Amino acid sequence: MSFSRIAILAPGLIGGSAALATSQAFPKAKLVIWTRRTESIPAIRHLFPNAEIGTDPALVRGSDLVLLGAPPSALPSLVQSILPHLSPTTLVTDVSSIKESVEKSIAPLLQGKAHWIGSHPMAGSEESGLTAARANLFQKAPVILTPTSSTSPETVRDATTFWKALGARILTMSPSEHDAQVARISHLPHCIATTLVLAAGTSSLPLAGSGYRDTTRIAAGPSSLWSEILLANRTEILASLKTFGTSLAQLTSAIEKSDATALTNILQEAAQIRRTLPSS
Amino acid sequence: MSFSRIAILAPGLIGGSAALATSQAFPKAKLVIWTRRTESIPAIRHLFPNAEIGTDPALVRGSDLVLLGAPPSALPSLVQSILPHLSPTTLVTDVSSIKESVEKSIAPLLQGKAHWIGSHPMAGSEESGLTAARANLFQKAPVILTPTSSTSPETVRDATTFWKALGARILTMSPSEHDAQVARISHLPHCIATTLVLAAGTSSLPLAGSGYRDTTRIAAGPSSLWSEILLANRTEILASLKTFGTSLAQLTSAIEKSDATALTNILQEAAQIRRTLPSS
Repeated sequence: MSFSRIAILAPGLIGGSAALATSQAFPKAKLVIWTRRTESIPAIRHLFPNAEIGTDPALVRGSDLVLLGAPPSALPSLVQSILPHLSPTTLVTDVSSIKESVEKSIAPLLQGKAHWIGSHPMAGSEESGLTAARANLFQKAPVILTPTSSTSPETVRDATTFWKALGARILTMSPSEHDAQVARISHLPHCIATTLVLAAGTSSLPLAGSGYRDTTRIAAGPSSLWSEILLANRTEILASLKTFGTSLAQLTSAIEKSDATALTNILQEAAQIRRTLPSS
Repeated sequence: MSFSRIAILAPGLIGGSAALATSQAFPKAKLVIWTRRTESIPAIRHLFPNAEIGTDPALVRGSDLVLLGAPPSALPSLVQSILPHLSPTTLVTDVSSIKESVEKSIAPLLQGKAHWIGSHPMAGSEESGLTAARANLFQKAPVILTPTSSTSPETVRDATTFWKALGARILTMSPSEHDAQVARISHLPHCIATTLVLAAGTSSLPLAGSGYRDTTRIAAGPSSLWSEILLANRTEILASLKTFGTSLAQLTSAIEKSDATALTNILQEAAQIRRTLPSS
């Protein structure tokens, strides 16, 4: 497919970054940005002087790609609003951190109306909103595509082309596999960073070094969005939290017993796993 | 005091970084570097061509400041070895992450032989060793000094002057207060990052984004050193782990009950605390 008209809807951190990266990756494409709030238009126009910008869902008409930047709970009504303006060849995707519930709510709406595939860029920041957006957010970042049995190979290929052009590396799995894996690698870390901030408290914050800073960074993220994500992926996250509890009990026991061998083994095992991760 | 001869013993990540920063902050001072192993000398000489370098503890003779870079368990024998070469006006300090046990083992050895004060630079990396050292490691980093009733104001002042020259900001507290606070802000995060790596496992590592990366970075640190630190500060760390467990149970319960209000409140409270931390 050609990407000659690309619509990005609800540009926050992720959508806004995608818009910035799209401007660079597809300089000849017409960029279209839809926002729910009229008062957001001047800030968007400042960043994207050549884009078509507005609050009318009809803006998406004629787009090859529609990227939904809204949080999961806002997606069904957003998709309903653009339905009359989609063509059967339009590629529609999202950026949600949860996929199975989004698939269930969005795929039936779009069936026969557009080509739909879920996307989850594993990129972000503790910041949120368009002001935190940056063009290089997706450089080397994993983007997970979640095709189902209804997804055509062409849709996977086109979504891959788009995200690769933005710098991402692509992984493909089912929505349910996505939710299980992301529970472990993203949602659990968010739960744990949050708990760590609360447990460490405020009195020792002046002593905080880079260790505390990095370990807790994501806990500063947007609370209502994270609450929505954690509850939507509740079952998988509870399973991850249970595994975490078992590991924590083992580490605690080694410290309680002053068992240097057991404790060193635990630390060593984690260090070996963590060192397998490329540094960027 | 004048810093005309500065001895750095056992230069790993912290000691080596202190040596690099000292070269810049005190360009007229003679830098002396002691290492336990002859085979380390060429790498040290490569980094510090103008330093006096060797394995003989007598190297410290005439130094105004002796910085002990060795891990806590190695400090008593290291201090014993340099005792004959210290002058009563020499300032001796360390870089250990634990302070009460170090104070008990080191202060009696040095009493009347040198001016002793514990230091803990809250800086580091998941890397270790001289190859990871960098001159700017202490820029804006907290360095905690732990004077006791035996410590003279001049000793506190001189240690402050030294670390400030290396770019650090100084906090001062008793060794026991240090251990309690650092348990919460550094040792607990290390335990939690380690547990998180083990609970998240390896199968989802290809999906890891910046959240997992930052949250778990410190878990790649040196295992035997961390085992030693965690066991030396065992009581305080167990108390912190207990607090963490209580907080984690609250978060888990909110997810179990799908209680969006409770969950959002927990996330919001942590986000508010974390956002009070300056960005660097």
